[in-house]
Amino acid sequence: MATDTAMSPKITVELLRQLRQVMRNSKYITEPIQAYIIPSGDAHQSEYIAPCDCRREFICGFNGSAGTAIVTEQHAALWTDGRYFLQASQQMDNNWTLMKMGLKETPSQEDWLISVLPENSKVGVDPWIIAADQWKSMSKALRSAGHSLVAVQDNLIDAIWEDRPHRPSTKLITLGLKYTGLTWQDKILALRGKMAERKIFWFVVTALDEIAWLFNLRGSDIEYNPVFFAYAIIGMSSIKLFVDSKRLLDPAVREHLELDRPSKPELTIQCFPYESVYTELQAVCAALAPKEKMWICDKASCALTQVIPKAHRSAIPYTPLCLAKAVKNPTEIQGMKMAHIKDAVALCELFAWLEKEIYKGTVTEISVADKAEELRSQQKDFVGLSFPTISSVGPNGAIIHYRPLPETNRTLSLNEVYLIDSGAQYIDGTTDVTRTVHFGTPSDYEKECFTYVLKGHIAVSAAVFPNGTKGHLLDSFARAALWDSGLDYLHGTGHGVGCFLNVHEGPCGISYKTFADEPLEAGMIVSDEPGHYEDGSFGIRIENVVLVVPAKTKYNYRNRGSLTFEPLTLVPIQLKMINTDLLTQKERVWVNDYHRKCLEIVGVELERQGRKDGLDWLIRETQPIV
Amino acid sequence: MATDTAMSPKITVELLRQLRQVMRNSKYITEPIQAYIIPSGDAHQSEYIAPCDCRREFICGFNGSAGTAIVTEQHAALWTDGRYFLQASQQMDNNWTLMKMGLKETPSQEDWLISVLPENSKVGVDPWIIAADQWKSMSKALRSAGHSLVAVQDNLIDAIWEDRPHRPSTKLITLGLKYTGLTWQDKILALRGKMAERKIFWFVVTALDEIAWLFNLRGSDIEYNPVFFAYAIIGMSSIKLFVDSKRLLDPAVREHLELDRPSKPELTIQCFPYESVYTELQAVCAALAPKEKMWICDKASCALTQVIPKAHRSAIPYTPLCLAKAVKNPTEIQGMKMAHIKDAVALCELFAWLEKEIYKGTVTEISVADKAEELRSQQKDFVGLSFPTISSVGPNGAIIHYRPLPETNRTLSLNEVYLIDSGAQYIDGTTDVTRTVHFGTPSDYEKECFTYVLKGHIAVSAAVFPNGTKGHLLDSFARAALWDSGLDYLHGTGHGVGCFLNVHEGPCGISYKTFADEPLEAGMIVSDEPGHYEDGSFGIRIENVVLVVPAKTKYNYRNRGSLTFEPLTLVPIQLKMINTDLLTQKERVWVNDYHRKCLEIVGVELERQGRKDGLDWLIRETQPIV
Repeated sequence: MATDTAMSPKITVELLRQLRQVMRNSKYITEPIQAYIIPSGDAHQSEYIAPCDCRREFICGFNGSAGTAIVTEQHAALWTDGRYFLQASQQMDNNWTLMKMGLKETPSQEDWLISVLPENSKVGVDPWIIAADQWKSMSKALRSAGHSLVAVQDNLIDAIWEDRPHRPSTKLITLGLKYTGLTWQDKILALRGKMAERKIFWFVVTALDEIAWLFNLRGSDIEYNPVFFAYAIIGMSSIKLFVDSKRLLDPAVREHLELDRPSKPELTIQCFPYESVYTELQAVCAALAPKEKMWICDKASCALTQVIPKAHRSAIPYTPLCLAKAVKNPTEIQGMKMAHIKDAVALCELFAWLEKEIYKGTVTEISVADKAEELRSQQKDFVGLSFPTISSVGPNGAIIHYRPLPETNRTLSLNEVYLIDSGAQYIDGTTDVTRTVHFGTPSDYEKECFTYVLKGHIAVSAAVFPNGTKGHLLDSFARAALWDSGLDYLHGTGHGVGCFLNVHEGPCGISYKTFADEPLEAGMIVSDEPGHYEDGSFGIRIENVVLVVPAKTKYNYRNRGSLTFEPLTLVPIQLKMINTDLLTQKERVWVNDYHRKCLEIVGVELERQGRKDGLDWLIRETQPIV
Repeated sequence: MATDTAMSPKITVELLRQLRQVMRNSKYITEPIQAYIIPSGDAHQSEYIAPCDCRREFICGFNGSAGTAIVTEQHAALWTDGRYFLQASQQMDNNWTLMKMGLKETPSQEDWLISVLPENSKVGVDPWIIAADQWKSMSKALRSAGHSLVAVQDNLIDAIWEDRPHRPSTKLITLGLKYTGLTWQDKILALRGKMAERKIFWFVVTALDEIAWLFNLRGSDIEYNPVFFAYAIIGMSSIKLFVDSKRLLDPAVREHLELDRPSKPELTIQCFPYESVYTELQAVCAALAPKEKMWICDKASCALTQVIPKAHRSAIPYTPLCLAKAVKNPTEIQGMKMAHIKDAVALCELFAWLEKEIYKGTVTEISVADKAEELRSQQKDFVGLSFPTISSVGPNGAIIHYRPLPETNRTLSLNEVYLIDSGAQYIDGTTDVTRTVHFGTPSDYEKECFTYVLKGHIAVSAAVFPNGTKGHLLDSFARAALWDSGLDYLHGTGHGVGCFLNVHEGPCGISYKTFADEPLEAGMIVSDEPGHYEDGSFGIRIENVVLVVPAKTKYNYRNRGSLTFEPLTLVPIQLKMINTDLLTQKERVWVNDYHRKCLEIVGVELERQGRKDGLDWLIRETQPIV
């Protein structure tokens, strides 16, 4: 049965006492440090991390995907963004101060440290889990105020974490051309072409999804993200891969990587243990000729970055692999389309089931999430979920990255808005979809908010824009209808989506934040997910995954060409939630066209799979607005 | 009579030969340099510059407001942005390569230099006219490719410029409370408050408009910009002003600055000759206590910035004066409103006159510009123009910052679109307005483009957005209607406007460029000027100056409050150019409301001034659309 109790905070008094003790303990550090920074990431700057890397959660209790904790002798503070304000405040006890990023009054980590630290303080951080660019700016800011940032080689959280899990080493999946469209050999050659263009001799690959994409391999070391712990160093004639050696005993992997009979010398992969990347990179650097440059992402770990002498280092905000991976090839696009059709089948079945079950009064956030996973798992090539399902009733919907737990689990009812944001990994693609529905009669205000969010969703989805436009220029389209009424949402509008890879990926996105995103290109895939949240009451979000496609326009200024989006997600948007009076004629046509497409494409598949309930539901939910 | 000949390019063969000679001449430089950078600015990073500082124009012929020339032993290239592509290509001879900034294929200055320079080259630049932040990034890029950026103390253009004009020293105007709303003493105290908040002991003021605003003084050293050459160094208890000593002989200025009987010791101004800023700053720096920090804008000259030891330097992207100046106080807002009413009177008279004169076939771009200036000069407190009038017929309108010259001057006719972008300095405010009109029958395509531009103009002007929103987030609103049809314009949508100060000012604006603009605040004043340009055919732009004001919204999410714009410009938009079928109902209402406001406010003033022709024209041009 559902209860209404809030998430209980983690009690951290004793942990903070222990951490402050090791911050002064010469066993771990040469000189006491006055503050210790606990970033959220792992050594690969992953967004989702393995249990052994959940150090920030361990120390403060907050388990959202983004956040940095800082502990000083007197204070403990956590910085996170608007998606997580409510969740973080519920998961942390009162030893912690929540720093709400993006609000004017919130100090930056640097400013806060400077305001609380005694003179000439030392601030420690594990150099393996802080990105080189963050190290640089933090170090500079602290230095300018008379403090210093020091690399603490032993992780101090690990020192107090008694039952810390081991680093996982799961079985690897090899992907053939049918799924990837390109062999890893061709990807290496294309990469070397980019390197040659820029006169780069080496490239240190640290991002797990880039390594998985490059070698057409997948793993399950990190929940939801089909990646595996590895590094790679790619030279113009050599390939060094760093993974747990046990993984290479698998004949399928050996065959895939041509470990036993390489076809060409320059495509021979040398394998090394995961941990030896540091010493091997040192060896490569020691042998560099004076002018030889090495690429490394400026978000790679400070520890690894600093191995490369400055004169040889070319730190780049996005790697060529990140860009190549973002622009999906026709095979990947086809795979993503198939994955979204299967995913839509599962969701049609889910909503059909829900509409019957709701009356029993026993359906909870958790049971819907479980049912959704069950239905998805019946689809071909299902691997797992792509992120923890956000299944939220009423006020829980206002916790933007909510995840139902037994103690927060609410029962679905006819009186509250229900929001489900979920997705899956299939071998042919990754999905991510949010629908917000009401099983009874939504209030006028709920409908009004939903309609503004829908108008924003359509404004982005139907936007036509010139080639070369960056995603952040589209963000305000998603907000204009909300802004007009004094409403808004405190998160970005869209993120890149991988193909059987991370559900969040760079280098493109749609956000009000000014970041160095790359221009949108045909073949890129992003999400379109405006929302609106009323704390303590409800949350609304409408999310489709959309593909960037060329647009036909009446004119073609300076021959630049235009782009627009094609929705890959094909799940009806609940008409009951729409105040159609607030829609323009163009918006009504968009909704009807979208629903016709859902019916045509997903209907065929529901029929093929003999899923009568889902098909009936789909037919009913895709009736045109008049 | 008008002719159709294009602007003739400046012949630069001999000048380039001379420049390349001095680049190797040990009289000016210790070691030969392989490239010389000629930035567009003066020592104050002014956008508009005095004739003595027009070095980039001198060397290449291009006289637009933005552009950087680089001369190597073999090449000569000029970088400028989309506003100036056509103009630059017409003003430069074929010794010069035009580098079109913002196009994907155009290399950055750094990349280009690296691609053309021999190994280990030296690139020279005058450290007084390159901004510190530009020096830093250029120097870093060159160093990474094995070259070096060197400061050449003697300006090499000055070395070959025989009849270079003297630096001007015009009479200063003192502004009383009636115009400024705040005494300079109160401004100094407010500034010191900001300095104290950030523990800053000194602030080196280098921007001419900041100095003019701070001291409530104006000059006319630079055409169109009512500023004067000066520096200031503000301490917590001292004020050092660097200006040509002759200017301080004027009793009104002495009285205004309280030079002879200062009211308080900490508000006593010490005056120094303009040129002594370098040595005086050295003296101040030599006396700094260890922790004392000094503010300087990161766009200040490299020469002056480097006087401040790094440990004491706090380089900031926008100074507190820049921000304080941007948010107009009630007196300044009232002044700006009055200035715009007077300006509208002049323009109503101009258009009334034009509609009669056009039939004579003798009205030219230059004669309209002259007439506009004459009519403006009849208005109270007129000082001069705020920028060179862009008066352009047909194809000349596609040159975004066109300025009619005898050799390009076209006659207005019934067959071509006419665009006039003009503005003035009045003692109470600065104006900047663009109207595009047709005296005969515009083509369907011209009307279609005009209507898309108008839709973009309205989308920005009527936008409602939360407090804290940065201007760049509004840029796409101005483009959406154009983008939908595959059209666009290659310039930003709006810039800050000073109050009897520079017509372009920071730190806010509306642009697709991702720059660190400050959030819009009530009291800020910006332009709203989307356009569309067809090379060789016509140009369209609709520009109002608008004031940021609080907006009333139905809801108020998180109590952030909302903002919108109020047009200060009150000149009718030509209805004949609008395809009203393309307007939404909301847009039609906006146009009618705007025209009613023009009629009410400007009508009264036209009547008061007895300007019957202008009034008749205004009444006719403000008829509502049905």
